[in-house]
Amino acid sequence: MSSTRDIDALIDLMARLPGLGPRSARRAVLHLIRKRALLLTPLADMMQTVAATARECINCGNVGTADICDICTSEKRANGEICVVEDVADLWAMERSGVFKGRYHVLGGTLSALDAIGPQELRIPRLLDRVRDEAVSEVILALNATIDGQTTAHYIADQLEGQVRLTSLAQGVPIGGELDYLDDGTITAAMRARKSI
Amino acid sequence: MSSTRDIDALIDLMARLPGLGPRSARRAVLHLIRKRALLLTPLADMMQTVAATARECINCGNVGTADICDICTSEKRANGEICVVEDVADLWAMERSGVFKGRYHVLGGTLSALDAIGPQELRIPRLLDRVRDEAVSEVILALNATIDGQTTAHYIADQLEGQVRLTSLAQGVPIGGELDYLDDGTITAAMRARKSI
Repeated sequence: MSSTRDIDALIDLMARLPGLGPRSARRAVLHLIRKRALLLTPLADMMQTVAATARECINCGNVGTADICDICTSEKRANGEICVVEDVADLWAMERSGVFKGRYHVLGGTLSALDAIGPQELRIPRLLDRVRDEAVSEVILALNATIDGQTTAHYIADQLEGQVRLTSLAQGVPIGGELDYLDDGTITAAMRARKSI
Repeated sequence: MSSTRDIDALIDLMARLPGLGPRSARRAVLHLIRKRALLLTPLADMMQTVAATARECINCGNVGTADICDICTSEKRANGEICVVEDVADLWAMERSGVFKGRYHVLGGTLSALDAIGPQELRIPRLLDRVRDEAVSEVILALNATIDGQTTAHYIADQLEGQVRLTSLAQGVPIGGELDYLDDGTITAAMRARKSI
């Protein structure tokens, strides 16, 4: 059907989003067409805006609309603490809890021998530079409590040993759990009870 | 954070899609930002296109990009059969099965005294016109097997009685279905409509 080609194309694109399959993509597209002025047009416009402006912070790897993100430019966040997370989703989860007042460093993944991801593939060299160049008093390794996350934490701890106070989130993060899926209270409790490595 | 305002706005809009909540909207938006060229930009463009072109067929209520949809304009589909469905999603489901070769009529809902939806709020008068004006031999009432769906089917059957052959979908055990998981009503219907092997 030639005249529904665009609608079919939109369904195919929507089905590639995480959490949506073909059936829910069809449902979403029908919903969008019904709410054209209220939802479809604003969503398309905002996607254009974000596609044009979103970029990674060259300092910490956070996602924002400037070369250096708000957290890295805010003087209020320069308290000497850097919280190392795997992913921007983890940074967002941490920010939602509101417990951490310092700056972040987003690795962009974890070390993985299987996937041939070494320190150079992550943002680890940049972290070592920051610890040397910025006035950093503490590095909090807030990596996921998975095997790869903890391997990465150990590697970074080895690299930074003796240069800075190193801490990790308290136990309270469930084994095998991921930050993005934790509730704010658990993140807050784990953050408050962080301990020296 | 002012520079993530657009990203937050995009997350809020995405969270209004059926099947997505705040958490999955955040995940989807991060995915979109990471796949900017491959997914975010094409999706935004396609949404613009669909927002500009999608419209309801003035004849049957199907969604397409022309005033009269492809099914209504196709001479091949003019076999005298009209399949009445509640919703465009039902029309799409029927088309995927490929079993029906005629045309459709999308009501846009069901009669509902509670929600004050009468025949005028649906596309029922237009259906009566079509039966009178087009060479219609059979109307298949493919409405959902819910109370409202069946009430609507009965109402339409009353209106069209004597003018045309009226049928409804067979009720029974779904293909691949297990008796143990079926509701009593379905088993009763399948038993009553049992057929010789």
